[in-house]
Amino acid sequence: MRAEPFAAEDLTRNDFLGGAVRLWQPKDGYRAGVDPVLLAASIPAQPGQTVLELGCGGGAALACLATRVRGVTCAGVEKQPAYADLAQRNLDDNGLTGVVHCADLAALPEAVKSQRFDHVIANPPYFEDFRAVAPRSQDRAVSRSGALPLETWVSVASRRLKPGGVATFIQRADRLPELMSAFFACLGALELWPIHPRSARPARLVLLRGRKERRAAFIAHPPLVLHCGETHEKDGDSYTETVSKVLRTPKPLPFPERMPQVNRPARR
Amino acid sequence: MRAEPFAAEDLTRNDFLGGAVRLWQPKDGYRAGVDPVLLAASIPAQPGQTVLELGCGGGAALACLATRVRGVTCAGVEKQPAYADLAQRNLDDNGLTGVVHCADLAALPEAVKSQRFDHVIANPPYFEDFRAVAPRSQDRAVSRSGALPLETWVSVASRRLKPGGVATFIQRADRLPELMSAFFACLGALELWPIHPRSARPARLVLLRGRKERRAAFIAHPPLVLHCGETHEKDGDSYTETVSKVLRTPKPLPFPERMPQVNRPARR
Repeated sequence: MRAEPFAAEDLTRNDFLGGAVRLWQPKDGYRAGVDPVLLAASIPAQPGQTVLELGCGGGAALACLATRVRGVTCAGVEKQPAYADLAQRNLDDNGLTGVVHCADLAALPEAVKSQRFDHVIANPPYFEDFRAVAPRSQDRAVSRSGALPLETWVSVASRRLKPGGVATFIQRADRLPELMSAFFACLGALELWPIHPRSARPARLVLLRGRKERRAAFIAHPPLVLHCGETHEKDGDSYTETVSKVLRTPKPLPFPERMPQVNRPARR
Repeated sequence: MRAEPFAAEDLTRNDFLGGAVRLWQPKDGYRAGVDPVLLAASIPAQPGQTVLELGCGGGAALACLATRVRGVTCAGVEKQPAYADLAQRNLDDNGLTGVVHCADLAALPEAVKSQRFDHVIANPPYFEDFRAVAPRSQDRAVSRSGALPLETWVSVASRRLKPGGVATFIQRADRLPELMSAFFACLGALELWPIHPRSARPARLVLLRGRKERRAAFIAHPPLVLHCGETHEKDGDSYTETVSKVLRTPKPLPFPERMPQVNRPARR
């Protein structure tokens, strides 16, 4: 838990989305990678809509989303005071509208609890001692990791959504069974979008979304591939064109359509 | 429920695995597609091991598996008497060793309940009124479909496995949230292998496997693609080379390795 604010000399300011967003980040500590950028790009928010991020860290996802979709109203919840401060500063310094609350998911402030959002997003922290089998109880999962199980994250997200609202999580792929179980228990119209480092490698990340009080068949989309080529050949840029564009410009990365146009039914 | 045996004129005999297996199938009723062939090919059974199929239908998966891996001992459970008879006949007429029991999953015969198997496999029937959201109770899921929820299938599979034994299910992709929730609750070392009709289409089927009393990180493998090309262009064979070989010869279709050889860690 980081309580004290970061000192100026502990921070660097880095370009995201090709400089469209500039974010203060701690030199040591949690620094945003591709995850929050991909998460933000995947959210189909429209101007005028509201977005809540649970566990927003330094605010990278919210800042990227609000930069791409001008006119969204952002809210963030972050339990570490230093990161909550940083996230608020990052929104303010980029001229973006939003309020970041320092709070635990299990005890949201009234300002958040009294609202329902069009979108709830999250990139929950993960732990090296992740469990590959089902936790026997929430308590045990909590005590092992010092943090809340994904079930709690998803259940809080669901409660904060308007009917028809969309929850979108990005997460390390090895936590998909836990994440999908939680989504299946709380939300409908689930869609999985696995993110593979290369086309022939297992997924490293997953995007999973679901809608509150809506039903539709689950869809497992074709993978999003991060890097070109079968293996890591040389240093330097190897991002696929789609991913490169999303990392370097404020471009959306919409989930594939649920029902792509098909001329004829595919055979089996 | 089909109780009366099929009459000779109600059956056709069809080649599978390029004629290595010949299966009696009802002219009208459940006829095996690619699902049981892919399921059977994916099972890493060794000679001397035991395999149980839950809901074996006419026995296509067991027959394909026992043909490829000579020396496995097969058992099948099928609740519809006519299909149980057919499955037994299909094993016998192909010279394969195995016993098919006519029983409900919820009331397995003593001969099955007293055994633990190296592999349990299943291709549970699915229903057009599948639910895209969580069933509120098992009873409701059962009453809607007239059949058992996947949770029961997976829990029975788990109880019938030796420690370290492997459960492998093939299922329509839209049931993955329900299936994965059940696997996550009962088994460890889960591996998902999505099966897409074409590379740019959503998954149509999933192979999911897990091991009893074993832990390892969950893996989402790169997709198995059934057909070449982006869309259905013309009638005739369009299966990818891998799939074509598996459908037309008694060749294995092993899950990708958990840890493919990597020269260097991939970057993010």
